[in-house]
Amino acid sequence: MRYFLELRYDGAAYCGWQRQPDQPSVQQTLEQALSTLLREEVRVTGAGRTDTGVNASYYVAHFDATEPVADPGRVVYKLNFLLPGDIAVGSMTPVGDEAHARFSACEREYRYFIEPRKNPFTRGSAWQYYVPLDMERMNEAAAALAEYSDFTSFAKLNSNNKTNICRIMHAAWTEDERGVMRFTIRADRFLRNMVRSLVGTLVDVGRGRYTPDEFRAIVESRDLARSSGGAPAQGLFLSDVRYAPEVFERTMFY
Amino acid sequence: MRYFLELRYDGAAYCGWQRQPDQPSVQQTLEQALSTLLREEVRVTGAGRTDTGVNASYYVAHFDATEPVADPGRVVYKLNFLLPGDIAVGSMTPVGDEAHARFSACEREYRYFIEPRKNPFTRGSAWQYYVPLDMERMNEAAAALAEYSDFTSFAKLNSNNKTNICRIMHAAWTEDERGVMRFTIRADRFLRNMVRSLVGTLVDVGRGRYTPDEFRAIVESRDLARSSGGAPAQGLFLSDVRYAPEVFERTMFY
Repeated sequence: MRYFLELRYDGAAYCGWQRQPDQPSVQQTLEQALSTLLREEVRVTGAGRTDTGVNASYYVAHFDATEPVADPGRVVYKLNFLLPGDIAVGSMTPVGDEAHARFSACEREYRYFIEPRKNPFTRGSAWQYYVPLDMERMNEAAAALAEYSDFTSFAKLNSNNKTNICRIMHAAWTEDERGVMRFTIRADRFLRNMVRSLVGTLVDVGRGRYTPDEFRAIVESRDLARSSGGAPAQGLFLSDVRYAPEVFERTMFY
Repeated sequence: MRYFLELRYDGAAYCGWQRQPDQPSVQQTLEQALSTLLREEVRVTGAGRTDTGVNASYYVAHFDATEPVADPGRVVYKLNFLLPGDIAVGSMTPVGDEAHARFSACEREYRYFIEPRKNPFTRGSAWQYYVPLDMERMNEAAAALAEYSDFTSFAKLNSNNKTNICRIMHAAWTEDERGVMRFTIRADRFLRNMVRSLVGTLVDVGRGRYTPDEFRAIVESRDLARSSGGAPAQGLFLSDVRYAPEVFERTMFY
């Protein structure tokens, strides 16, 4: 019997979602708690990797249980007591045998937060960056992303990607009343380190190092050496994973 | 020359505002940074104590410098680089010799946050409390507070308060779209541990242990043994300190 779990996690203490030897990962932490609760060895498959220190305000994973679970709500409740405070499970839902947290996902969304001042309360959830940024220029550059499909300029080398092709559905910056800037990007898939590298390069547009046209030239170059350094991990959140409605519909909103 | 500093701090790593032997305090941390920058021994006076682990989204302190500071904005900038990430200074303003961060303050405001679910991102800034709470009952009880002036039932023993008299200007609960409950309370002064003890007792009203009338009886009893245990420190924020406009006007909003 296959189940989808909806969860969120603060990535600060983890090497990322994916299990690594000798380093704490969200995947391994979740597998241990589930195995304890269900009294069998449970392996969990996630919607995708997240890098060291990256957060997820929304994440989906699946696992198979030998026996159907009588009361999934009860398992979620117990799971949250067993898991550390930096991982919270929102739901556990039976799905079809073909449903796959990673391969069935048709769209993912990331958000990146930049705070323009020192703030003790967003140290773990934003990049505190004090140089003024021109949002209009950053949005002009971001809007161009949907015209491209090859993101080799923002793909970490030595990654396992077979292709560097992504379909960007949306990429834009917004600013709230406190001046906190939020970059939202939706695509069918993301390459390793891609969002942080895009944010770092867009920030260089915002502070005047590149024009929006020079940003386009960087994308078109397919040369990793031309993009800027990645923005820090703590500002990045995986914020949505979407499936065809017959596969799975999101239930965890808060 | 006297200056007011506006600041905020995450209290998790500190024994509170006030200097204690062998424990890190916000006051001592600030004094060290200021003394380094101004090259003289600086003593800082705060608007009031905060308990171990309690946060301040707004705080005011004053200090005296032997010589007028040529560029206060520059000192704020350098101070923020020198201070750890959990303390941020927003402004430094010259004030009159009579202005006193503590004695001139005529009103203080605290906020307390209760989150009704496990949330990795509010572990340091809210009480995650999973029992359903009846906001209407809690507000009925909170509204009664303005009718009383003696808060002995919520005053920690062995504190230095000469009297337990406070004038409450406002006390109410609100709830945002995510279900996060916020208690806001304004008074001329607060007793040690008072807000956390009030919140703990109001939560007992909200979960049905006491009626609003029983809450009134607890206030009227002037008996510390009848109030509930204090709510956890991390959910509490000092959020405002007000002065007569001729003394000092708030400039730090975000």
